[in-house]
Amino acid sequence: MAEKGLLVVISAPSGGGKGTIMKELFAQDDNLRLSVSATTRDPRPGEVDGTHYYFISREEFEALINQGKMLEHAEYVGNYYGTPRGPVEDWLVEGHDVLLEIEVQGGAQVKKLMPECVSIFVLPPSMKVLEERLRGRGTEGETTLQERLSTARQEILHVKDYDYIVFNDRLEDAVSDILAILRAEKLKYSRNTDSAERVLNNAETV
Amino acid sequence: MAEKGLLVVISAPSGGGKGTIMKELFAQDDNLRLSVSATTRDPRPGEVDGTHYYFISREEFEALINQGKMLEHAEYVGNYYGTPRGPVEDWLVEGHDVLLEIEVQGGAQVKKLMPECVSIFVLPPSMKVLEERLRGRGTEGETTLQERLSTARQEILHVKDYDYIVFNDRLEDAVSDILAILRAEKLKYSRNTDSAERVLNNAETV
Repeated sequence: MAEKGLLVVISAPSGGGKGTIMKELFAQDDNLRLSVSATTRDPRPGEVDGTHYYFISREEFEALINQGKMLEHAEYVGNYYGTPRGPVEDWLVEGHDVLLEIEVQGGAQVKKLMPECVSIFVLPPSMKVLEERLRGRGTEGETTLQERLSTARQEILHVKDYDYIVFNDRLEDAVSDILAILRAEKLKYSRNTDSAERVLNNAETV
Repeated sequence: MAEKGLLVVISAPSGGGKGTIMKELFAQDDNLRLSVSATTRDPRPGEVDGTHYYFISREEFEALINQGKMLEHAEYVGNYYGTPRGPVEDWLVEGHDVLLEIEVQGGAQVKKLMPECVSIFVLPPSMKVLEERLRGRGTEGETTLQERLSTARQEILHVKDYDYIVFNDRLEDAVSDILAILRAEKLKYSRNTDSAERVLNNAETV
């Protein structure tokens, strides 16, 4: 029997290097699946339905909300974005760990709906480092950069709603931290309440 | 500033291979310290005070209990055994993780007194494997062996009082499990409540 997987919420201020961490995480853990968001916005050139997003209509999206089939959702610039519950739950039942890469508001919604989820906030070592990283990209004007830093400051105040804090100082440490969290979470007694019974009854335990 | 270390309680039924796990754990983690118990029994040949046990008098032991300076204690065959609080707290303040290898009753006492401790129960994969391991030693008669198995069955029922369950199937997996638990525990928000403030104030975080 496959053990049920973990639902893992990861949030981080933009510019924190979250993308690189995710890439490395999936390279090292082949049991992990990335949740695909749904949106009502139009696909951009090259975007594939079911890979980058599930592209659905406003009516479909609102129906999913009303049926309780969205784990979290938000509206930005007139479009809905959210996490459909179905694919996530299917993967969990199959024993996969499922990663949700979402904003702090979404993270709070998921924690409320599925309190057994594991939530991780990836913090930059300092605002100074975050600023250097954003400048290093060289892709943004000063106004956009200041806006990003201001948003990051607001987001960082939400760390208190998360189970774990990972500092994104060295990439390999941050990835190892997250893998250790997943490994430890699976060993919690609360996720192994039948363990004594299985040992005493000589059932297969490992 | 040194971060405060973790207090780690490990319990396991005897014959579960706990000794081998401990040895490997200390080989791989040089920040870990093993708590030394105090006892009122006489030293056996070769036993060193402060290394194998703190050998103290009955009066001294009872004074420590009455002053709340024992993390846990029990009486066996007319002698006291227990964990003195002082050396443990000194190590924790210095930033060392401190491991207490104790019985289930002691484990419950420590959890009550220091709820922030991390408690781990090491389970054999099955009673059958535990029996095979005990027989494999070839050091005990059938009566002693049956008594040990009976005690183990009682002890295993206490897993529900522990934070984590580690199966002692393959030694290297069990050791990695425990190291992952220690790593993850240090990343808990509850142990890093000042993290947002430190990032926002550009303090040293890592």
